Formats: sequence, C-alpha cells, structure tokens
Amino acid sequence: MPKYYDYAASTPVSLEVLDSMAAWQNKSYANPSAVHLEGESAKDAIRKSREIVADKIGAMPSEIIFTSGASESNNLAIKGVAFKHLENKGHIITSSIEHKCVLNTCAFLETLGFQVTYLEPTNEGLIEPGAVRDVIRSNTILITIHHVNNELGTIQPIDQYGSIAFEHDILFHTDAAQSFCKLDIDVDDMDIDMLSLSGHKIYGPKGVGALYVRDARDSGLVPLIHGGGQELGLRGGTSPTPLIVGLGVAVSSFPSQSDIDHSDFQTTISDYKHSRNGGEKTVTTIWNVTFSDDQELNRFKDDNDWLVSQGSACNAMSNVPSHVLSAIGLSGDEARRTYRISLPPYKQQ
Amino acid sequence: MPKYYDYAASTPVSLEVLDSMAAWQNKSYANPSAVHLEGESAKDAIRKSREIVADKIGAMPSEIIFTSGASESNNLAIKGVAFKHLENKGHIITSSIEHKCVLNTCAFLETLGFQVTYLEPTNEGLIEPGAVRDVIRSNTILITIHHVNNELGTIQPIDQYGSIAFEHDILFHTDAAQSFCKLDIDVDDMDIDMLSLSGHKIYGPKGVGALYVRDARDSGLVPLIHGGGQELGLRGGTSPTPLIVGLGVAVSSFPSQSDIDHSDFQTTISDYKHSRNGGEKTVTTIWNVTFSDDQELNRFKDDNDWLVSQGSACNAMSNVPSHVLSAIGLSGDEARRTYRISLPPYKQQ
Repeated sequence: MPKYYDYAASTPVSLEVLDSMAAWQNKSYANPSAVHLEGESAKDAIRKSREIVADKIGAMPSEIIFTSGASESNNLAIKGVAFKHLENKGHIITSSIEHKCVLNTCAFLETLGFQVTYLEPTNEGLIEPGAVRDVIRSNTILITIHHVNNELGTIQPIDQYGSIAFEHDILFHTDAAQSFCKLDIDVDDMDIDMLSLSGHKIYGPKGVGALYVRDARDSGLVPLIHGGGQELGLRGGTSPTPLIVGLGVAVSSFPSQSDIDHSDFQTTISDYKHSRNGGEKTVTTIWNVTFSDDQELNRFKDDNDWLVSQGSACNAMSNVPSHVLSAIGLSGDEARRTYRISLPPYKQQ
Repeated sequence: MPKYYDYAASTPVSLEVLDSMAAWQNKSYANPSAVHLEGESAKDAIRKSREIVADKIGAMPSEIIFTSGASESNNLAIKGVAFKHLENKGHIITSSIEHKCVLNTCAFLETLGFQVTYLEPTNEGLIEPGAVRDVIRSNTILITIHHVNNELGTIQPIDQYGSIAFEHDILFHTDAAQSFCKLDIDVDDMDIDMLSLSGHKIYGPKGVGALYVRDARDSGLVPLIHGGGQELGLRGGTSPTPLIVGLGVAVSSFPSQSDIDHSDFQTTISDYKHSRNGGEKTVTTIWNVTFSDDQELNRFKDDNDWLVSQGSACNAMSNVPSHVLSAIGLSGDEARRTYRISLPPYKQQ
C-alpha cells in the first residue's frame, strides 16, 4: 500500500467537512440567490462560512469573495487590478517562483502591454524585501508575491512586502494557498490588500476557495466572472453552498500540531543522505529534498513506496526541471534527484 | 411543508451522483495533475466524465473544458473570443433576454470598445433568426444566444442561428444551462461552436459545469483563468475530481419523462385563472405564469405553499421587474402577478 505524502498538492476531505456538506446536497439545495425560505437558509449558511474565513485572517466578512479555488482567486486579484488600468497599463512586481497561475496571468498581461518584473529568489528560495523596494516604479500598480512556496515550503516575509507596498501606496496581493490556516495571518498587521486561499489544501473540498479583498465593495476590482450580482458583483455564478459550507468547516476544524505525528517520516528520511532545500524558514510539512547521489535516490525509492511529487503537481506533466528548482540554482541533475515530500498539514506554532 | 418548484434555479443532487462522488472526497483524493498512481486514477475518472459529457452533445472528449459552472463557461466563451480581437475589437450579437452573466459580460466588453447588438424578443420570448441575419456586420466576431430562456422556458431555434453563423463564418456560442440533457443537442448538426452547461440544473453538484469548444486545442481561445496547464491550458486550477465525476454521473443518470409525474402540479395550476408566457415552444418543466388579477394571485398564494421564483433566482435580489418580462412586453403590474414555477426536469421527447 503506497504512502501518500503529497498533501501540498491536495488533502483528503475530512469527515467533519464531508458531514457538514451532506445536508446542502440534497436536502437544502435551493439556489442561495432565491428569495424563498430555502434560498434564505442556504444564504445564511454561506454567511456563516464567510464569517469563519474572514475571522481567520482578521478581515471583515464583506471582504471575502468565494471563488472556485486559489487559481481563480489569483487571476481575479491580478487581472482585476490590471483591468482598472487598461488604458495606461502599468507595472507589476512578482517573483519568478510563483505558482504557474500567477506567472501565466502576468505573461498574459504582458501581451496586453503591462510591464512585469519577475524577482529572482536567493538560493534558499527567499524573495528579499530590499529587492522589491529596488524595482518599484512610479507606475507600479501591484506587488504580488506568495506567502509559502509550494515546492520548497519557504516562508516569505509578506509583512515586509506589505509594509513596503503600503509606504508606496501600491496594492499588495499574496497567494496564501500553502499557508492559510497553517501560519498566522492578519491582513491588517501585514498590510495585505488581497489574499488568495484554497479549500483542498486544508482538508476542505476541491473546487472552492476565496479571495480576500480589502474594502471589497469600494475596491473597483474588475470581475473575472461577470454574473448575476453574486459576491458583491465581483464573482458571478450560483454560489455552491455545499462547497462553501465545507470550506468554513475546514477552517474551523483545522488540526493543530499536537493532533498529527510526523515522527515516522522523520525517522525514515534521516536514513538517506540528502539536503533539504528552501532555507531555514520553511513550513514544517513541506520537505524539498535532494538526494546526495543516484545510489541514495534509488535506495530511497526501493525501500519506500511513497506518493510524492517532483516539482509540484501543476508542473508534473512537463519533463523539464521545475522553474522553482532552476531558480534556486539546482542543476538539471540535482533537480532529477529532488522530491517534494509533503506531510499532513496542521497549524504551525 | 412547502413544496419546492424552483428546479430551474437549482436541483438537488441525486443519490447516484452523491454516491459517485464519495470515494473521490477522502479515499482517492490526489491532485489529478500528479503523476503518481493516485493522481493517474483521478485523471482516469475525469477522462470518463469528459467522454460522457462529450457524447451527450455529439462532441469529442478533447472539446470539453470543465469549469466551475455555466456562468464561468459563458464568460470564458465570450471573453475568450473577444480577447482574440482586442486590437481591432469587433461586433457581438446577443439577445436582451440572456442570463445576466452574458449581458454583464457583453456590457463589460462594450467598455473596452467592442460593439454589441442586443436583439429584442417577440412577445412570445422568441429571438427570430431573421433578426440575427439582419444585424450581421463585416466585423461580427460572435453570435451568442441561449438555447432555453431561464425565466420563460422558451426554446430558441439554435440550429437556425448556427446555420446563419456558419454561412457567414462567424462563431456561434449558446448558453445551454437550461437545456443540456433536457433537449436533444448535437453540436455538429446544429453548427454550434461553443456551448455552456451546468451541473446543478441536472441533479449534479453545484460548482461545476463545462464549456464545449469546437477543436478546442486549435481554437486560440484566450483563457479566463490562466493556470498550470490544466484543461488544455484553457482553464487553470486543480480539477475538482468529485465534482467532475458527479457531473458525468448526473448526465448518464438523467431521468426520462416516464420517471417523473407532474400531474399534481397540472391539476393544481388549472384551478387558477392565468396565462402562460413564453410562446408555444417551451420546455415542459418551466411554467412562467401571470395570474389574471390580484384575487387569483392571492387565492393561489393562500392555497399553496410553493417555493417558486419571481423572475429567476439571479434576478431575485432586485425589486424591479425582470429584464425578461419587460422585454416580452409585460407591464410592471403584470410582472408582479407573474411567477416562474419550475418542475423536476427530465429528458423531453
């Protein structure tokens, strides 16, 4: 029986979450936009989830826009700001080790005439705040840098990006798909204007996520999905009650460190010569490991039937080394000997 | 116990669909983009769903792009074509009685410089094919007209729009959220280039839908959600295996007319003086009914505790008469006496 160590790609849905979704599937299944009793009841359940998600990051419920996941949230945040500036375009700062959905969104905006600076990480996977400050231009409209790198687990100093952005009156967005619930986040303390999060990285359902938008109602954000006025007019489409309820319960039932024991993994991995990438400040549940040589790699593979990723799931289909591993200076040969092993996540102290 | 007659807004998830989703929630929960065994298994389940959906409309599996629902599909189709023509813009033909997500997408494109013609319906809710032909311009890039109107149930002659579009080498998109599985659709016979469909209108889950795109790989459609290469690069985001599997099973288990008995409804409604809007060609499960006067309306409301819509769910939050009822010439007073009563859907013969 293979052992699943690919939790950064996707988690199972917890039983609590599954239970919470059930009634909304075929008992109270009305469209939450309907004005009758059953519609109101769905709307109420969605309101509660919105409060839970908002509370987790120190936001107001009216600042939470439910989406289909972090990829949509990232697209909405970045394009939503860019399209406000379609006439004069503008400059966007990001990093070269963002998730592909951010990089491809930025590349698309470049084809429309926007300018994008892709900051390179240090060999430890860190985007240095000073580097952000150095590339700010008079027409910079957005800084978008992720919180935790999905391949390395590196924790980026988003509070410092936030404070630099605030100083320069530039919007700051962060992709928190890998950190939400796992690390403390306070959007006010950290000067975050927009934050993307996902359900299926925290034992919630696939197909749901959210975008936090500071003062959403007055943000002027251009919707990605125009619709029937749902989500303050910022995201159209029938709100999927079961998924949104499930996301809320995933947040409120997210485990703490003491609930989960990783000692088996640690005992095993220490048996093989390896180096761990991503620097000193990483989340404890993402291990990006380069085995010292082919012999160690093969011994590890022979001994252990583990389901892990080379690079991330989203880069898995391609045969070239991941853009993240290249960016931190790994050779093709080293990248080939590198795995991302990701453990069941919990709230890190 | 109120009686739910708002199936056009949303249906319950059938037990077959629920059962089919269960295993993918917390047993085989890997990211379908992962290259390991569990990822492959999820990918395989998604492939099967894609075949089922494609087969239902005479398409190829490679022409089905899974989305979060019909609103996203409509946005992807219309903006995806428009953004191919961002430099020279172009002209789009639609109708004034489309779903709000189509109308608001078109209004957004107008702000970018696109021209849009909104065709008015007849008093029976029909968009006449001749009217489409009359407004075609040399720079028309897209005709987008829905299959079945969500408030009236009127069936539009999409095969005729398709043939006009084909004749003029213009792309034809149809929003089939209210007709998919309920009416026969063949994208080749009907010359449909793009078609939007939804899960939660056919006893499938909320939060999933699809867009059919003819020759998707070569369509040049500009993605709405840029991502990690999923769905032929046309729609980013982790594919939600449970939702996609559920959509497939919803299609393959969709009931036929003989499974569902509406005689209770018909007996009841015939007791009240009313006229049915939407013309002669409507789906049998959407009844748009104007009660003859306040006395009949109140008698109906006093006798029957029914959950129905005024207008559609997506227009429900507004107090003005629905844009559809206004377009077919109902006065504000008539609109106030009008309900959309929608019955459990089935495959219409």
